[in-house]
Amino acid sequence: MEPVVNRLAIIGQGLIGSSIARAVSLHRIARELVVTDASPKVRKTVAELGLGIAKVVDSGAEAVRDADLVVACVPVGQYGALAKEIGAHLKAGAIVSDVGSVKGAVVRDMLPHLPENVHLVPAHPLAGTENSGPESGLADLFENRWCIVTPLEGADADAVETVCRFWKALGSEVEAMPVEQHDKVLAITSHLPHLIAFSIFHTGLKNEAALQSEIMKYSAGGFRDFTRIASSNPIMWRDIFLNNKEAVLDVLKQFNDDLSELAGAIEKNDAEKIVELLSTSRLTRRKVIEKEHISVTAAKRDQEDAFPIVRPYGD
Amino acid sequence: MEPVVNRLAIIGQGLIGSSIARAVSLHRIARELVVTDASPKVRKTVAELGLGIAKVVDSGAEAVRDADLVVACVPVGQYGALAKEIGAHLKAGAIVSDVGSVKGAVVRDMLPHLPENVHLVPAHPLAGTENSGPESGLADLFENRWCIVTPLEGADADAVETVCRFWKALGSEVEAMPVEQHDKVLAITSHLPHLIAFSIFHTGLKNEAALQSEIMKYSAGGFRDFTRIASSNPIMWRDIFLNNKEAVLDVLKQFNDDLSELAGAIEKNDAEKIVELLSTSRLTRRKVIEKEHISVTAAKRDQEDAFPIVRPYGD
Repeated sequence: MEPVVNRLAIIGQGLIGSSIARAVSLHRIARELVVTDASPKVRKTVAELGLGIAKVVDSGAEAVRDADLVVACVPVGQYGALAKEIGAHLKAGAIVSDVGSVKGAVVRDMLPHLPENVHLVPAHPLAGTENSGPESGLADLFENRWCIVTPLEGADADAVETVCRFWKALGSEVEAMPVEQHDKVLAITSHLPHLIAFSIFHTGLKNEAALQSEIMKYSAGGFRDFTRIASSNPIMWRDIFLNNKEAVLDVLKQFNDDLSELAGAIEKNDAEKIVELLSTSRLTRRKVIEKEHISVTAAKRDQEDAFPIVRPYGD
Repeated sequence: MEPVVNRLAIIGQGLIGSSIARAVSLHRIARELVVTDASPKVRKTVAELGLGIAKVVDSGAEAVRDADLVVACVPVGQYGALAKEIGAHLKAGAIVSDVGSVKGAVVRDMLPHLPENVHLVPAHPLAGTENSGPESGLADLFENRWCIVTPLEGADADAVETVCRFWKALGSEVEAMPVEQHDKVLAITSHLPHLIAFSIFHTGLKNEAALQSEIMKYSAGGFRDFTRIASSNPIMWRDIFLNNKEAVLDVLKQFNDDLSELAGAIEKNDAEKIVELLSTSRLTRRKVIEKEHISVTAAKRDQEDAFPIVRPYGD
């Protein structure tokens, strides 16, 4: 494959950053690859792991020197500090991108500290596992996953194209949408579900002592479906909730209204209303499956990600 | 295997009832098996499918004649009507059990219509798939699953023992607990999660039109974890919610309080509080995995039911 860029810099070597490094090395997506991380321990681990062509340096400033494309893989809360550190060291025409779960914050925190002649093209690969750290990175993490690119208004077309091609080279299906739309959509598809999963787990926890560990034992009844996402990194999610606050609290209010409607129907023994509210879900779920299968190809992905049709506890 | 009972009657040939029929036939758990269903169409299908030793009859009254054990596999809302129908036709010493997701309602609705010399021993196998109908039944549906048996106070020990042995013969791990405790535990592990899943799906639906189908496309972000259980049978769930109303609304209130606490911390930008609330979840999830693996054996089950560790979207 023809490399997408000459020199790539990745700031941050957690799960995502080190997965990109592995994939870039494996598929020669860049000719040169420089990586760094704020933690000396992580830098040491990465150097020891020997991630392909990656060269480890000790600072963001050093990493971005002469880089054509810089991908920030740091916690959302550190965007501002990072931009301040690297801004003066970027070459003219460099592209700065990221992988964060919220996009408004990228613009808000990074843009003010980047030179005029640098292109900010935020992105969000919808991929990950429950693990963290450079040892957990996977070269195929982004294959057959969506990557949402959110170009700013008036963005340089070539710069946007480069970021799109970069993610396609990593195996992703790329879609572009405005920053604000991304944050609204993700509030519903990801942030709210996580908020709820965390809470329901907490509720279960508080009851557990009283109900003699039964909750854990019988968690296959639906409770467990929440636990996968409830195990996510608390720091990362703190930053997501705080940095997409408006959209998150907005959908939360909608959710509370919907939940109240269903709870009220139960309270009033309104059998018809309950069935009505529950039935909508079933039709839509079929649509989710269809859309997923049409939109994202890969038999392997289907197997891994398919709704557990055989033998889940579906009581 | 030595049969557990001589003559077994199963009322209802949906997913659960027909799965029991298959398993009983396969493993000779009863010497004689009589099944029925309220729907002529279902009876016809079952007869055509030829489920092992099962003999299809046209009514509950006919089915329970001379039966040692009767397992009711009908919607929870039909318990009363069923008990009224079969009460007079049960032989002395017969055991009546069920498979419903709520246990208080079984006692409330069936007990008044059953003769004194008949033993009511409610049970709840924690098993199922998203499918329904007699064609979807599986002989191994209950293998390595929990089955909770809820003996009434002063219950006949032999009758309880028979029901426990029955479910062990079907491959389940059996646990006994009081009726009320079952309903509280299931409210948290199953009923509340379903309530929430239905609601969050509804919230997503309402937004979808506005957000151009993106919600469905990007649902792997956590939203999809809810959709499996949101696809459940609306009629069944209406009956569960209505028949475990007190416990469900009780945990719902707890959940709302917890959610409000987290939402409030986000609203106030209380970073520390957010991390504190999110961190508890992570520790507990590990405990869930451990408890599940200790308590329920079967490599096959582990594979099927294991938390999707490889390549879920865990953003």
